[in-house]
Amino acid sequence: MIVVMRHGAPQESIDAVVRAVEEMGFKAHLSQGTEVTLIGVIGDERPIDPEHFETLEGVERVVPILQPFKLASRDFKPTPTEVEMDGVTVGGEGIVIMAGPCSVESREQLRETAYAVKEAGAHALRGGAFKPRTSPYSFQGLGREGLELLSEVSAEVGLPIVTEVMTPADVPLIQKHAAMLQIGTRNMQNYALLHEAGRSGHPVLLKRGMSSTIQELLMAAEYVLSNRNYNVVLCERGIRTFEPSTRFTLDINAIGVLRELTHLPVIVDPSQGTGKASLVAPASRAAIAAGADGLLVEVHPHPERALSDAAQQLRPEQFEKLMRELRDIAHAVGRTMHGELLADGALSVSGA
Amino acid sequence: MIVVMRHGAPQESIDAVVRAVEEMGFKAHLSQGTEVTLIGVIGDERPIDPEHFETLEGVERVVPILQPFKLASRDFKPTPTEVEMDGVTVGGEGIVIMAGPCSVESREQLRETAYAVKEAGAHALRGGAFKPRTSPYSFQGLGREGLELLSEVSAEVGLPIVTEVMTPADVPLIQKHAAMLQIGTRNMQNYALLHEAGRSGHPVLLKRGMSSTIQELLMAAEYVLSNRNYNVVLCERGIRTFEPSTRFTLDINAIGVLRELTHLPVIVDPSQGTGKASLVAPASRAAIAAGADGLLVEVHPHPERALSDAAQQLRPEQFEKLMRELRDIAHAVGRTMHGELLADGALSVSGA
Amino acid sequence: MIVVMRHGAPQESIDAVVRAVEEMGFKAHLSQGTEVTLIGVIGDERPIDPEHFETLEGVERVVPILQPFKLASRDFKPTPTEVEMDGVTVGGEGIVIMAGPCSVESREQLRETAYAVKEAGAHALRGGAFKPRTSPYSFQGLGREGLELLSEVSAEVGLPIVTEVMTPADVPLIQKHAAMLQIGTRNMQNYALLHEAGRSGHPVLLKRGMSSTIQELLMAAEYVLSNRNYNVVLCERGIRTFEPSTRFTLDINAIGVLRELTHLPVIVDPSQGTGKASLVAPASRAAIAAGADGLLVEVHPHPERALSDAAQQLRPEQFEKLMRELRDIAHAVGRTMHGELLADGALSVSGA
Amino acid sequence: MIVVMRHGAPQESIDAVVRAVEEMGFKAHLSQGTEVTLIGVIGDERPIDPEHFETLEGVERVVPILQPFKLASRDFKPTPTEVEMDGVTVGGEGIVIMAGPCSVESREQLRETAYAVKEAGAHALRGGAFKPRTSPYSFQGLGREGLELLSEVSAEVGLPIVTEVMTPADVPLIQKHAAMLQIGTRNMQNYALLHEAGRSGHPVLLKRGMSSTIQELLMAAEYVLSNRNYNVVLCERGIRTFEPSTRFTLDINAIGVLRELTHLPVIVDPSQGTGKASLVAPASRAAIAAGADGLLVEVHPHPERALSDAAQQLRPEQFEKLMRELRDIAHAVGRTMHGELLADGALSVSGA
Repeated sequence: MIVVMRHGAPQESIDAVVRAVEEMGFKAHLSQGTEVTLIGVIGDERPIDPEHFETLEGVERVVPILQPFKLASRDFKPTPTEVEMDGVTVGGEGIVIMAGPCSVESREQLRETAYAVKEAGAHALRGGAFKPRTSPYSFQGLGREGLELLSEVSAEVGLPIVTEVMTPADVPLIQKHAAMLQIGTRNMQNYALLHEAGRSGHPVLLKRGMSSTIQELLMAAEYVLSNRNYNVVLCERGIRTFEPSTRFTLDINAIGVLRELTHLPVIVDPSQGTGKASLVAPASRAAIAAGADGLLVEVHPHPERALSDAAQQLRPEQFEKLMRELRDIAHAVGRTMHGELLADGALSVSGA
Repeated sequence: MIVVMRHGAPQESIDAVVRAVEEMGFKAHLSQGTEVTLIGVIGDERPIDPEHFETLEGVERVVPILQPFKLASRDFKPTPTEVEMDGVTVGGEGIVIMAGPCSVESREQLRETAYAVKEAGAHALRGGAFKPRTSPYSFQGLGREGLELLSEVSAEVGLPIVTEVMTPADVPLIQKHAAMLQIGTRNMQNYALLHEAGRSGHPVLLKRGMSSTIQELLMAAEYVLSNRNYNVVLCERGIRTFEPSTRFTLDINAIGVLRELTHLPVIVDPSQGTGKASLVAPASRAAIAAGADGLLVEVHPHPERALSDAAQQLRPEQFEKLMRELRDIAHAVGRTMHGELLADGALSVSGA
Repeated sequence: MIVVMRHGAPQESIDAVVRAVEEMGFKAHLSQGTEVTLIGVIGDERPIDPEHFETLEGVERVVPILQPFKLASRDFKPTPTEVEMDGVTVGGEGIVIMAGPCSVESREQLRETAYAVKEAGAHALRGGAFKPRTSPYSFQGLGREGLELLSEVSAEVGLPIVTEVMTPADVPLIQKHAAMLQIGTRNMQNYALLHEAGRSGHPVLLKRGMSSTIQELLMAAEYVLSNRNYNVVLCERGIRTFEPSTRFTLDINAIGVLRELTHLPVIVDPSQGTGKASLVAPASRAAIAAGADGLLVEVHPHPERALSDAAQQLRPEQFEKLMRELRDIAHAVGRTMHGELLADGALSVSGA
Repeated sequence: MIVVMRHGAPQESIDAVVRAVEEMGFKAHLSQGTEVTLIGVIGDERPIDPEHFETLEGVERVVPILQPFKLASRDFKPTPTEVEMDGVTVGGEGIVIMAGPCSVESREQLRETAYAVKEAGAHALRGGAFKPRTSPYSFQGLGREGLELLSEVSAEVGLPIVTEVMTPADVPLIQKHAAMLQIGTRNMQNYALLHEAGRSGHPVLLKRGMSSTIQELLMAAEYVLSNRNYNVVLCERGIRTFEPSTRFTLDINAIGVLRELTHLPVIVDPSQGTGKASLVAPASRAAIAAGADGLLVEVHPHPERALSDAAQQLRPEQFEKLMRELRDIAHAVGRTMHGELLADGALSVSGA
């Protein structure tokens, strides 16, 4: 952390800042520039707010130097983390595709989707039972009944389940039915939920807040990790910008940035990230080309009858075509689809 | 809701949309333009997703016509709502100032602040016991102990308490100590919390999500209102933009927009909205000049020792000066400070 | 400027950065933290790109310390600058209101507006002759003819003219007819235009780019100032954000921020900043309450017939009411309207 | 265009709007909903501002239905446009890579770069002679001398030139030296420049404004097209968002959106779109995977000595590696690199 003094700050202000730095157990390191004086704060600055020094007389601003996250950083753990969910590894060499309907609506709808995505090569089944909806008048999900349908269909089709948990009290219930707990964009900074998901030890899919910075996403992950749960998969799902032609702006740069900053796996949600079925395929290809470890894709057998997010769900035949395209992209970037039987007869097993 | 067909969409697509509209219980109304065909959906469109029709063959896009909120709208209730908190009315003629420290840190700190803001003319005491912090390594608030300090000091000084509730399970506890439940920017779309706050019947201060639209803020209020709790005060607290010189961009336009759309009271948080103590006074004056019903201001006796948000907390003497300025602005816009004794000897009682 | 080395950067990388700093004529100042090494660059960093050092081996990032503008800064000139336009002073004690139609449409329209705004107390007449329009199919302004109408009506009514110049070749022409050259939001970084406006020596009204940072606005002003033209008035006019209910988000915080950073006068355009006539009055009051030196307001005798920006132009009677409100706000913040005869009989003359 | 009347608007207001619509030569089409009345405006709405009707009594808002651009739209021209620049076709089947230094700095630097990018397979040479710089104190480009170096090296190496033109007066000069005129992000709405570039008939590379919507980009193209110059290539180069870890957020969705809306070729600038050399490769791969027709990439033989944008320029060896990756991605999406000799011996010639 560096404290930048105002132009012309008197010596007594500088001395007071130095004293304040030292009182907090840090070493102060003065640097006298031609126009301003800088005071370096030497030590682990993470637990202190930069604002602490900003209120002192004569201080212009404070510049943090260290990234505020620790357990999530590549400095802390240089090797990539692999997260297991019922035999499927996210973050290994193989690309993992999680697909399914936005909402669980009925046994028939869920089974039809599950068989279709499994057939097309998906590795996990996604589907919402508890749905965060902007309007209290919209369909809110089937709740507990939806979870039971997910369990039942998962067992029948043989795909692990990813589903959203919206509030701390529901963690044990969801954990019983799902292989991975999804924390949605609106709950990325729901700290009670992050703590509870952390304590559960269960794999967590943490979606970036729609207006959260990458640093804040990593700080949210840090809440889970600091509860000794290292099974965290990060998900870029589009951010809010001024552009109105898509529901969100998929931040494709985030994949590369996260790769440099963290060891955690990174997947992309092209359905939320675009909001429009016709844009899902290009966004999905782009994500894998940019280095994502997987995708979370919405698929519905009859989008025109869907009870939520109808416009962005792929039909099974669109999804099947996309899976073929993704395999080609994966190979072009030197990866395979998870579990893919390669030309030379070897099964690609992530991380093996 | 208007369904816009693609240029050159065939008659059978148009017919199919008309059928779909009618199957949902609405009347369809065709309008044949020179380039495109429009299909009006006649009826209360609120419960249906526009996306529902977007997936149909030949549809270009769907334009919602009605605002999606109902109970929060001026159409539903044309007269302003007044929210009572322990004898203080928010949304009446008098401007209400809620002031206090960002976090409750100790009995001494809280008492010192409470006496100072009361002396300066504040109407309620704010202070966080449970704190949503970006970093798990930052001070997280005193929790239950902080609540008890708030209760104790509130009784001693005679100011009602506003404090944040972060998770549904804490609603009963906070309700016992506070006159108003604050729902913070990160929890504006924490639906379980909104429902619980709604069911409590207790006054709610709902802060706008830092990247939520005004419409989304009103939809969040609708969650509380639809639980038959009409005691909701809205709070503009700055939104996230590309501008880096302030922590957030205070959306001053939101005050006027909300006035037109809703009957609920609107206050402003100039401390969060600027992130910097020196900018709090201009932002506060602007808010009252633009028509806000009150402010939520952070005040700390020794900001340089504050455990959170140090940079944006006013010192008591700064707050006292601000209160005098605000009174002048209030008069300039034809209002008074809540409880203010006017020149002609009449006590201004909000709503009286 | 501070060069932050990567965690674990080898000594030879550190040495290479030090050499690079010294080769550019700066002094390097090492600061060895517990986790990273910092290298301070001592000297006037303004002419060098921080990026210069970012490409060196082992460098994580570079943090600029000094503000990149110089002539526009308060450090360079601590006292407020007053800009004269035909006897009207912007930036003095008096608030200056520039009002008139978005576009000059006809002699009648312009005269009717000019008399109305003069009567209501405006100090200058605004009106566009050359109009930057998003669509090539929209009305593009009357051009040269519009300028002549402005000259004629200005002389008749006795109000100085502010009008937009869109391209360097037009500067001499506009300068002949207008007391102040307006550079619009789309041209804030049109550097050829900034240079030409600088060389003209004429007063310049520089509007903030709709997605420019405050620092970029000051750098654009620096282009004009560095041509020895110090007659620059800055104008906050709303920035682009995710909020769709207003055309732009008026950045009210910018007023306070600019006050701290620069000596140049700051005015606000509440018409562009809101995009809606009913929001102009609250935004105008807020701007003056926050400390703006004036306003640029669109007024049209018959907005429903306006050829551009119809929705945001005030009717003369709305403008007249607004002027009365503004006077009250001005007094509440200890200022007067430019040229206002105060109660005690003294004429308020800005800067006098 | 649809005029939405306010809830409860009286019949006389409705009649007045109908009259206004008819007076402008359109047909009005009434649609009486359960809560509000809609008035459809039948005819080509492009030349009229929606705001025109927003000012009428009783009108709540106006919803445009048609896209405001015409010549740029797919409806107007369903087949893709191919733009020729000295024998290189942009927008055909082959991917076109334009590479070179941010700024032309010297003959040596330019020749070294040109040979390197040619060798690696680039199809055109980019390089700035006139540079738009945020600061007047930064290197502003070599100007005319830079253009002459570009011409000379272009002839020697055999690569067409793309270079930026910043002001209308320079169009003839730049046109003499360059195969394609680049209009930069800060000038996307410099209408005098767009007109002049249109009149020149020369190929134009139009970069999206850093905070312009996709619709505004197409409207800017419309300015060029409406001057009968159909040789326009669009370029996504990153937009301004709240995310601070990259200089801009590359809007990968824009590629798919533009594909649907326009027949013009679309390329991507991954150097500006990320601002950091290490992120250029993932962004480039993503762009081609998403369907871009080409890239504009910054390459410098010694980025650490570059006079502008040092941090985002690739070294020749990085560029060479990227070109190999891009070829694999191009094949994966069923395309080739422009001029690439395919396995079966046929030369891929765009559009042939």
